[in-house]
Amino acid sequence: MARVVVEVMPKPEILDPQGKAVAGALPRLGFTGFTGVRQGRRFELEVDGAPDEETLEQARKAATEVLSNPVIEDVVSVHWAQES
Amino acid sequence: MARVVVEVMPKPEILDPQGKAVAGALPRLGFTGFTGVRQGRRFELEVDGAPDEETLEQARKAATEVLSNPVIEDVVSVHWAQES
Repeated sequence: MARVVVEVMPKPEILDPQGKAVAGALPRLGFTGFTGVRQGRRFELEVDGAPDEETLEQARKAATEVLSNPVIEDVVSVHWAQES
Repeated sequence: MARVVVEVMPKPEILDPQGKAVAGALPRLGFTGFTGVRQGRRFELEVDGAPDEETLEQARKAATEVLSNPVIEDVVSVHWAQES
């Protein structure tokens, strides 16, 4: 079974309160190496059958039309998952 | 500026209502190539300075201790972002 991974992140100019909360928590918990955090979403789409280009193209379309909100989010990656 | 990407997904045995909702919506919108959807989270941690192994190790620790809930989520990847 193949899987397409779709990665969506808030646009740089959009406030990201969840990321901000994590960025504030990290140093309090001893993780001092990070200067900022953004939180986005990661989807795995299961595909029955072969991982072909047509399916990937459909996933790209779904990423921009269904999985993300183009007003506030960017689709940063659509790719086949490395099978484990 | 370097960035570490942390990817977190719900464990396979955990219900994922958001993923289920997307999986239900896709065929209604004409995307018929997918048999299931899981929705997880993707973090970008900004790092001041060089992308060294120590920072990546700290990010791995933060991923399991802060960024994910180990009861219901798996950390599926911690890696340096390809700079654009």
